[in-house]
Amino acid sequence: MKLTRVCLLAIACCLPFAASSNDAPLNPTAAPARPKNVVIMIGDGMGAAYTSAYRFYKDNPETEEIEQTVFDRLLVGMASTYPASVSGYVTDSAAAATALSTGFKSYNGAISVDVNKRPLPTLLERAKKLGLSTGVAVTCQVNHATPAAFLSHDESRRNYDAIAASYINTDADLILGGGQKYFPEPLRQQFIAKGYQVLTDFTELAGLTQPKALGLFADVQLPWSMDEPEAHKLSNMTSKALALLSQNTQGFVLLVEGSQIDWAGHDNDVAAAMGEMDEFAHSIEIVEQFVRSHPDTLLVVTADHNTGGFSIGANDKYEWHPEVLRQLKSSPDEMAASAIAVEQWREPLATSLGFAIDDELFSKLERARMQGKKALATAIKHEIDLRTNTGWTTGGHTGVDVQVFAAGPGSELFIGSQDNTDIANKIISLLPKPKKDVK
Amino acid sequence: MKLTRVCLLAIACCLPFAASSNDAPLNPTAAPARPKNVVIMIGDGMGAAYTSAYRFYKDNPETEEIEQTVFDRLLVGMASTYPASVSGYVTDSAAAATALSTGFKSYNGAISVDVNKRPLPTLLERAKKLGLSTGVAVTCQVNHATPAAFLSHDESRRNYDAIAASYINTDADLILGGGQKYFPEPLRQQFIAKGYQVLTDFTELAGLTQPKALGLFADVQLPWSMDEPEAHKLSNMTSKALALLSQNTQGFVLLVEGSQIDWAGHDNDVAAAMGEMDEFAHSIEIVEQFVRSHPDTLLVVTADHNTGGFSIGANDKYEWHPEVLRQLKSSPDEMAASAIAVEQWREPLATSLGFAIDDELFSKLERARMQGKKALATAIKHEIDLRTNTGWTTGGHTGVDVQVFAAGPGSELFIGSQDNTDIANKIISLLPKPKKDVK
Ligand SMILES: [Zn+2]
Ligand SMILES: [Zn+2]
Repeated sequence: MKLTRVCLLAIACCLPFAASSNDAPLNPTAAPARPKNVVIMIGDGMGAAYTSAYRFYKDNPETEEIEQTVFDRLLVGMASTYPASVSGYVTDSAAAATALSTGFKSYNGAISVDVNKRPLPTLLERAKKLGLSTGVAVTCQVNHATPAAFLSHDESRRNYDAIAASYINTDADLILGGGQKYFPEPLRQQFIAKGYQVLTDFTELAGLTQPKALGLFADVQLPWSMDEPEAHKLSNMTSKALALLSQNTQGFVLLVEGSQIDWAGHDNDVAAAMGEMDEFAHSIEIVEQFVRSHPDTLLVVTADHNTGGFSIGANDKYEWHPEVLRQLKSSPDEMAASAIAVEQWREPLATSLGFAIDDELFSKLERARMQGKKALATAIKHEIDLRTNTGWTTGGHTGVDVQVFAAGPGSELFIGSQDNTDIANKIISLLPKPKKDVK
Repeated sequence: MKLTRVCLLAIACCLPFAASSNDAPLNPTAAPARPKNVVIMIGDGMGAAYTSAYRFYKDNPETEEIEQTVFDRLLVGMASTYPASVSGYVTDSAAAATALSTGFKSYNGAISVDVNKRPLPTLLERAKKLGLSTGVAVTCQVNHATPAAFLSHDESRRNYDAIAASYINTDADLILGGGQKYFPEPLRQQFIAKGYQVLTDFTELAGLTQPKALGLFADVQLPWSMDEPEAHKLSNMTSKALALLSQNTQGFVLLVEGSQIDWAGHDNDVAAAMGEMDEFAHSIEIVEQFVRSHPDTLLVVTADHNTGGFSIGANDKYEWHPEVLRQLKSSPDEMAASAIAVEQWREPLATSLGFAIDDELFSKLERARMQGKKALATAIKHEIDLRTNTGWTTGGHTGVDVQVFAAGPGSELFIGSQDNTDIANKIISLLPKPKKDVK
């Protein structure tokens, strides 16, 4: 016997939906059943511990209650993330992004090719064929696994140069992120010849008034968000992408990735993780606002997998102390780099940390500093883990299901438990039908 | 501006609901908007990693796909678990059960009293006042934190004797679990004088034909499920409770707890955890089937918190190996006890483990065995963690949100993100109105 889910389409009105931005109640029936625009946002590595921790990190200690976050407002379900069976139960970002982009499981490392290395149509390719505009905005290099699996095909995520070169054929309207080193001058010239504006300075983004554009705002990845608290790069890229892609009256599909949540998880760096979460949350809020004013837009947010085995509490203690994180002035990586660069590092580092460095900690950090920047960053992260009582089990990924968040027309389809391939298939089913198929 | 959720009641039909048990399609409108019966099931400590791991543990390796579990069928949302601010961000089982039973946050250790130690009305007390039958079926001692917070009040979960004695005044119809040592003969006589049947032998349960009953089937907690694979104690208690409590035509409220998922988590024992998950899943399936045949029953399943910082994958490797767990013949505790009791332990232990003990592992285990049962069990668990590639961060709890599962009338209220107190308040709102309040 099978349990059934019925009348899913009848409940479009039940989800968090667009109240109009001028406070007048919006007629729920005004929202179409099928979206014109789709924004898929991926918090790379953002398991449920990250969104729960982020809520506590943002908690206003002046109030008794714990304030809700955008994740609380938008949660609708969860998704399994395992790759094709050849790769076991724990996915990498490439297989996960392939699932989310194509609706097919593949092996770890696959960039939108199947287990036999045959290309699979990606979400952005499908959208492009239907006359929609497409774009990606990420904080890693634009040719990294997740954006690559939405734009291109390769038997290995490691083929960075080939993936970058392949973008010339995607016809994508916006490609925004880092990765200058993978786009040598001749390749940039090819993009220009194809009508792309190629930007490398982030201040140029504000002046962009129309697609197409290739924006490469760092040699590889963008800096940690917490090291440039005023920059809001991902949310600015997201805003600009919405403004430019919505020029297409037929609609658009946009991928936004908080890429470095995962990197912070791999580094077991809870401070950088919360900084990346904050900027990803801001970016989601911008799209949430866009959905309010454009009720023909579907927003789907998920993670590709969990990273680090991050836990809120550790070492047998029923405690977690986000107040330690709220006082940090920069990332552990940045603190380590600064402390290596000067002779008198104890006071400046204490200022960055927001707590005094006692003699015991000083000798511990001094020993690490002698081994170099990486060892010092590790020692700083270790001290932050101790003070926050944060746990980690791995520098890799874990196999726990991730959350699914959604708003806008079709969002009711994402309620409950699903596989990551189902997310892609649901989004694909909501794309406009090809003209020839219209009856 | 606030996002709103509307027409929740209009979407009762969208959830996993009762298809009739004789395969005839059930008219969705036949299910009432308000349940007559409520079954709340708590997987103690059952964070999302436990349900994901359980799916992989139950995966049939003969098939390419990974089979769904009851958790996949029933997932509707998630819940935050933090206690009252005086206890920080990480809850214990007492504060969490108080939240789930009363709708109020309290301090860690509180048994349905508020932060000022004043009693709070519990779900089962409310149900009893409304003329419903009430029951609890758990695998821990019946006076442990979770059942205690549904039945009673105490300023401390540690007051086991006082909590046990207080049960005489609850008028609960069924109290099933372990805990003989907390119910001395005079107290048992008081229960008998009040009309209770007092059972201490599990085989007597099958013959029980009507409430009231106090069933104490172990001195303290019941044995690990994996050490009595044919017993199915929790699912048998659940079945019996449904049969007996449904004799009340006014309805019932039943609490079922998979108590020792948490204890396995505290022990960092992935083998026992999967065994407890399996029996808890069987118990949910029994209630799921009851909801199909009794569409006036609401089922809500959740966890009180996450335990152990359990992770599916660890040590930088993208692997998890449930096949190791599928071959175990008993729990690590039982293996250690058996290996301590005999001289020639190597071969019998290898048989229980399902893999050969090489010389290196033998000397490791031999050293642990000299230190006693606990050390040997720890060494066995460590070996299983290594072979499965399982990670843990603590012997305590962690603060990540937990999942919420539901079926039956009112289940649509539990879609999305909520607090654990919201779960109680939603269930309370679905109880019948007191007669005097009926207009
Ligand atoms: Zn990663
Ligand atoms: Zn516990």
